[in-house]
Amino acid sequence: MKVIVINGPNLNLQGIREPEIYGNLTFEEYLKSLQNMFPQVELSYFQSNIEGEIIDKLHSIGFDFQGVVLNAGAYTHTSIAIGDAVAAIKTPVVEVHISNLAKREDFRWNSFITAHAKGQIIGFGLKGYQLAIQSFL
Amino acid sequence: MKVIVINGPNLNLQGIREPEIYGNLTFEEYLKSLQNMFPQVELSYFQSNIEGEIIDKLHSIGFDFQGVVLNAGAYTHTSIAIGDAVAAIKTPVVEVHISNLAKREDFRWNSFITAHAKGQIIGFGLKGYQLAIQSFL
Amino acid sequence: MKVIVINGPNLNLQGIREPEIYGNLTFEEYLKSLQNMFPQVELSYFQSNIEGEIIDKLHSIGFDFQGVVLNAGAYTHTSIAIGDAVAAIKTPVVEVHISNLAKREDFRWNSFITAHAKGQIIGFGLKGYQLAIQSFL
Amino acid sequence: MKVIVINGPNLNLQGIREPEIYGNLTFEEYLKSLQNMFPQVELSYFQSNIEGEIIDKLHSIGFDFQGVVLNAGAYTHTSIAIGDAVAAIKTPVVEVHISNLAKREDFRWNSFITAHAKGQIIGFGLKGYQLAIQSFL
Amino acid sequence: MKVIVINGPNLNLQGIREPEIYGNLTFEEYLKSLQNMFPQVELSYFQSNIEGEIIDKLHSIGFDFQGVVLNAGAYTHTSIAIGDAVAAIKTPVVEVHISNLAKREDFRWNSFITAHAKGQIIGFGLKGYQLAIQSFL
Amino acid sequence: MKVIVINGPNLNLQGIREPEIYGNLTFEEYLKSLQNMFPQVELSYFQSNIEGEIIDKLHSIGFDFQGVVLNAGAYTHTSIAIGDAVAAIKTPVVEVHISNLAKREDFRWNSFITAHAKGQIIGFGLKGYQLAIQSFL
Amino acid sequence: MKVIVINGPNLNLQGIREPEIYGNLTFEEYLKSLQNMFPQVELSYFQSNIEGEIIDKLHSIGFDFQGVVLNAGAYTHTSIAIGDAVAAIKTPVVEVHISNLAKREDFRWNSFITAHAKGQIIGFGLKGYQLAIQSFL
Amino acid sequence: MKVIVINGPNLNLQGIREPEIYGNLTFEEYLKSLQNMFPQVELSYFQSNIEGEIIDKLHSIGFDFQGVVLNAGAYTHTSIAIGDAVAAIKTPVVEVHISNLAKREDFRWNSFITAHAKGQIIGFGLKGYQLAIQSFL
Amino acid sequence: MKVIVINGPNLNLQGIREPEIYGNLTFEEYLKSLQNMFPQVELSYFQSNIEGEIIDKLHSIGFDFQGVVLNAGAYTHTSIAIGDAVAAIKTPVVEVHISNLAKREDFRWNSFITAHAKGQIIGFGLKGYQLAIQSFL
Amino acid sequence: MKVIVINGPNLNLQGIREPEIYGNLTFEEYLKSLQNMFPQVELSYFQSNIEGEIIDKLHSIGFDFQGVVLNAGAYTHTSIAIGDAVAAIKTPVVEVHISNLAKREDFRWNSFITAHAKGQIIGFGLKGYQLAIQSFL
Amino acid sequence: MKVIVINGPNLNLQGIREPEIYGNLTFEEYLKSLQNMFPQVELSYFQSNIEGEIIDKLHSIGFDFQGVVLNAGAYTHTSIAIGDAVAAIKTPVVEVHISNLAKREDFRWNSFITAHAKGQIIGFGLKGYQLAIQSFL
Amino acid sequence: MKVIVINGPNLNLQGIREPEIYGNLTFEEYLKSLQNMFPQVELSYFQSNIEGEIIDKLHSIGFDFQGVVLNAGAYTHTSIAIGDAVAAIKTPVVEVHISNLAKREDFRWNSFITAHAKGQIIGFGLKGYQLAIQSFL
Repeated sequence: MKVIVINGPNLNLQGIREPEIYGNLTFEEYLKSLQNMFPQVELSYFQSNIEGEIIDKLHSIGFDFQGVVLNAGAYTHTSIAIGDAVAAIKTPVVEVHISNLAKREDFRWNSFITAHAKGQIIGFGLKGYQLAIQSFL
Repeated sequence: MKVIVINGPNLNLQGIREPEIYGNLTFEEYLKSLQNMFPQVELSYFQSNIEGEIIDKLHSIGFDFQGVVLNAGAYTHTSIAIGDAVAAIKTPVVEVHISNLAKREDFRWNSFITAHAKGQIIGFGLKGYQLAIQSFL
Repeated sequence: MKVIVINGPNLNLQGIREPEIYGNLTFEEYLKSLQNMFPQVELSYFQSNIEGEIIDKLHSIGFDFQGVVLNAGAYTHTSIAIGDAVAAIKTPVVEVHISNLAKREDFRWNSFITAHAKGQIIGFGLKGYQLAIQSFL
Repeated sequence: MKVIVINGPNLNLQGIREPEIYGNLTFEEYLKSLQNMFPQVELSYFQSNIEGEIIDKLHSIGFDFQGVVLNAGAYTHTSIAIGDAVAAIKTPVVEVHISNLAKREDFRWNSFITAHAKGQIIGFGLKGYQLAIQSFL
Repeated sequence: MKVIVINGPNLNLQGIREPEIYGNLTFEEYLKSLQNMFPQVELSYFQSNIEGEIIDKLHSIGFDFQGVVLNAGAYTHTSIAIGDAVAAIKTPVVEVHISNLAKREDFRWNSFITAHAKGQIIGFGLKGYQLAIQSFL
Repeated sequence: MKVIVINGPNLNLQGIREPEIYGNLTFEEYLKSLQNMFPQVELSYFQSNIEGEIIDKLHSIGFDFQGVVLNAGAYTHTSIAIGDAVAAIKTPVVEVHISNLAKREDFRWNSFITAHAKGQIIGFGLKGYQLAIQSFL
Repeated sequence: MKVIVINGPNLNLQGIREPEIYGNLTFEEYLKSLQNMFPQVELSYFQSNIEGEIIDKLHSIGFDFQGVVLNAGAYTHTSIAIGDAVAAIKTPVVEVHISNLAKREDFRWNSFITAHAKGQIIGFGLKGYQLAIQSFL
Repeated sequence: MKVIVINGPNLNLQGIREPEIYGNLTFEEYLKSLQNMFPQVELSYFQSNIEGEIIDKLHSIGFDFQGVVLNAGAYTHTSIAIGDAVAAIKTPVVEVHISNLAKREDFRWNSFITAHAKGQIIGFGLKGYQLAIQSFL
Repeated sequence: MKVIVINGPNLNLQGIREPEIYGNLTFEEYLKSLQNMFPQVELSYFQSNIEGEIIDKLHSIGFDFQGVVLNAGAYTHTSIAIGDAVAAIKTPVVEVHISNLAKREDFRWNSFITAHAKGQIIGFGLKGYQLAIQSFL
Repeated sequence: MKVIVINGPNLNLQGIREPEIYGNLTFEEYLKSLQNMFPQVELSYFQSNIEGEIIDKLHSIGFDFQGVVLNAGAYTHTSIAIGDAVAAIKTPVVEVHISNLAKREDFRWNSFITAHAKGQIIGFGLKGYQLAIQSFL
Repeated sequence: MKVIVINGPNLNLQGIREPEIYGNLTFEEYLKSLQNMFPQVELSYFQSNIEGEIIDKLHSIGFDFQGVVLNAGAYTHTSIAIGDAVAAIKTPVVEVHISNLAKREDFRWNSFITAHAKGQIIGFGLKGYQLAIQSFL
Repeated sequence: MKVIVINGPNLNLQGIREPEIYGNLTFEEYLKSLQNMFPQVELSYFQSNIEGEIIDKLHSIGFDFQGVVLNAGAYTHTSIAIGDAVAAIKTPVVEVHISNLAKREDFRWNSFITAHAKGQIIGFGLKGYQLAIQSFL
């Protein structure tokens, strides 16, 4: 089973930004422990700060993958285009957010992705990615 | 580890309503399979159609439980009082919804519970309860 | 043919509150005259000020009744849960309101029940219950 | 007792539009069966697609009629002027809608007529006209 | 100098509706006293309950008149089309309302006409027509 | 192939109003050049300032026409009834607006017609009618 | 008969600001011509840029005056307190605005004064004051 | 004089929740000191987390009590039904809130009770109950 | 203990306006009875219709006073500046309103003061001032 | 005459996505038939999922092209920046949408492009591109 | 070159309020250092808590000054009248705010002044006044 | 001291677009004069029309720069992601806009950047960049 994790804008800062809080584990390193938890899954990873590159990647998932774990970051709240891309592809997409959006600004409560996703998991920190992969098993 | 699943209004109809779609597995029966998946967890179950009884139950969780899985059904969208109860107790609460709320009426997108919960899981069907228990481990 | 009339919060005050205006006929007494008008219908009656008990009653209607006349009182405007219960059962529900809601506060114009009901009758006073039963014949 | 039924825009298509659904009974024919149900009532009928002609007709009801059954169609939601005409005349007006407006677009939920009407009956199909006449007896 | 008074829907009821309040002076009779007050003005009068006929009349004003006094009644609040007609013709239009709209329902506070009118006069009762004619002198 | 052009309120002023801008070509004259461009189409024309007459005309299109080009003018933004008429008939309707509505007042951005039309063409001046006819070929 | 004209903020600039447009007639000079038009009226004048001083003046009108012509300028749209003062005194108040507020920013369309005034006159330039005094005769 | 204090949802946690902040005085204990302050008043107490039970209690107040001190907790903001019950009974009701609602979430600023209450007291902590009783003397 | 009562716009009319309703007790006279009720409190009084003078007074309270009772009248709903002044000073401020604002226009429900005040008391008539002083003891 | 067609996000999926519905004609192939229809026009094509690349392309149109046919896809509803680019260049831009946006989600009804475009054509499927090119001739 | 700094409500508290945060430099003292930074500018200063006095001062700037630095404090968000005064005078006005309004309550984000000002500078603390003067050089 | 100027979409057109208005000074040339004004500052420049590239650049500022002057153009109003990037980095960011946004469309008044910026400067034309650099000194 092949699953890809796609991270959106500013998520490349994990491990660099405020390491005393978030730890100095980069997302790439976290991905390794995730891979270890799910030996039956072949994990890929993609990150971009560019909305259109996330769309390109979603289009290319096509035949090879059985699942997408998508944390579109701030584009979640503004990108109808990414939502359309999720709707257009057949691979099921699970939406993840690290923080509990309901505790933040109002404009983070809207999501253009959820209505087209298999499900949404928010607020569990990095563990949310683990639960998302679990949901494909 | 003790975890309680609390279901709100109309969720007692599971297994009775439209069995050709939802199966004729009642929630009580599903709970047994859930218990089997997590032998290390002592599972309890409570269901009520009365808002205040859900509040009473949340208050009584107190010292004995390490986690609450709460699907408050339609009260999610209207009950500030249940949200306050979740905020008042120390046991972490994970919010679950069976259906993908983003595909339904606008008034189901609001939740008075999420901001006080540990996390939210929506859209995975009954599997959402499993992921919620997983999140406590 | 069996029909049940379900009244929501504060409707138990009929006949007690301001008798010089509403008369000192209690709803139970009015029900008798209603029963007399429709000898072919077996009428039942249920009133509760508790939202969840109205849901419980709707669930229990099940096989025995051919119609529900529901005046959910103020819960009409706030209870998504009662609306869901109306949607969940198969017995047709007719929504009745004694007063003309359009002449009252704005927040009484919204109804979470109508979209799931067979029809809605408002503003005819107690006669609305009679028209509702008529609609089942 | 004299009662007039007034139908607004597009309601002249009854019996012509989608006869497999609505039947090929025109409203004029349905009116005959209605007349038969209420031999004690002298029924009249008026239909117009022109807002101002409905106002003219309401003004002319004057002394001869004891009741108006008004289905203003789509003008219900946009015509303050028809609402004013209903308020201006002394003959009681009962508002009827064939379909359940709560299941349709949001803009059909508003009515400029209800606040000035004796009552409102929606969602019962053509039977709503029968209930409306019943309400005058 | 030629001035025309155009009255919209329901204003034909003046003198008939509630004569103990509004007097039993019809608008036609009031018009005579108005004519007497302004011997130098040649007054015309037009009333219709049909939106499109008011538009037709405004179009036809053309060359003969130096002023229009327009009380479009309830169409004031809903008719973009009448507003466009006022904007399209060259004869200056003064908007009059008999009652003080600010004391009535919210939906009467909007006017599609004012922005295209020479001025607006509201709340002075029938005397508003006199002030409007005064404004042309 | 028979196509009818229906124009709504104030569009009868074309060629009269501000000829230095719009030219002194009346719509009737423009229609002739349109007929010349499409010899294979039998063109009809109808204009009314009365909302209900536009509805009457749409109803009567019935069997004879293969297409309607509808510029409902200001009724576009306020007439649910015309929108319903477009939805009720089987002949495809193309909505045209001469000016670019997005450059004008906010209330001109709403249309009750588009959702029931085959398509919408705005901003091309009189050429929009030509494109609309083209769309039927 | 004694009438007072009360002008609010920035109206002291009349005759100074943009004289090529507004003329170089100060409001005090205009007042003289107004006095000449109405020899039977004893005219007073008060202007202040301070909201509370306008309230003080309205309170002091008391017994001596038969009418107030009030142009509260921009305070019209923001001052509930001046609206309350107009409601509190017995002398009738006529609201005047020089410009056509419907042609300006949206926030100028609201008035906290109109609902408590005898009437409102807008858009006639300085002539509006003359019409207002006329309305008291 | 008989006065009853009615507390709504989550207010049973007083003295248990965060005792270092709120003290470990339960509301029942606080009630004793309140009774001592007002020896001339016979104090009763009722608490429920169930909306309908609060309505039941309000109905039963009837003849025996001269005043109700009502802190409906979170139901204040969502329960039209409790507001209706307050409006239906003759005993005057004073609304109390412990915290300053204006410092909290927006949805706590709305109250369905105030318009039917004798008065409202918010933000004084437990002392608000004392002021409320004072208001009946 | 020194406490000052500050009254805002139009509150100087107490005792003059509608004496048959409000009595002919001026606020100054009422203040005397208030002083008698609380011999241990040294009461001062300030009233102004000018927003900025209320701010000036609040600034000057400084060291001498232990409490402010503030009824800012209509400025309550529009003056962010008075709210800021309340926030800036250290003396605790209790907000009082004589009437029940929830029964009046919508725009009276907003308060820029409450969030910065110690508490708010509304609807008790003049007795509200007494309760406010009581709250400082 | 040189015209360029610019397609935005997800429009590269034409011919791949759901071929049983949309056909397996890619947009590139459709472009060829379009070129054949207009031999007098030199057609170019550009597609990107990246908002900024569409802006870059619009800037570069400059001198060589006489017309742009722009279907910005979902960016239509969110990109003020593309709207600004359309406003900045001198080449006329015609906005096209394949589907009838009025039948879809509310957020697709807004367009940041139309106000700066020559015209807008929606709902005609791929034929909309043909009508757009027609509009330049 | 003559420049005047005008400060609105509560800004007179600078140096007195919370000196450990804002320092105990009064605005008058800060003004001296500002004067020293710009020896080529003749600086004046005006502060008032009264809206109308700020308007009076703006009117009087007239001929003597080349620039106004205006921090209208909380009146920024509520005073259409001050905005009108800024628009009425010819001297350019630069709007300054000490704090970053975007980090504060929503109602501080609106400004009735900016649209009429030369520019706006917010969030730089007292340094904002220096940048504003710089902008005139 | 190192400062970087980052310009967003369409700002690359400076000097090309409407040179008779904006001059034919490109931003690169203007930057030279800016460098001359501040010899103590080492200035860099970056422009992109791609949202994600602006985020990438902000991330890379890291250790080398003491200040960022950011004009995100139209992305200011739509990009939560750029706002997040500004919040994530430690280098202080000053937001600049050339035009006075308050004079333009409503949707340009919102900024997702200001709340995370050191300050905001709008409306001073190109001089705003100079003031921004000044603010770092």
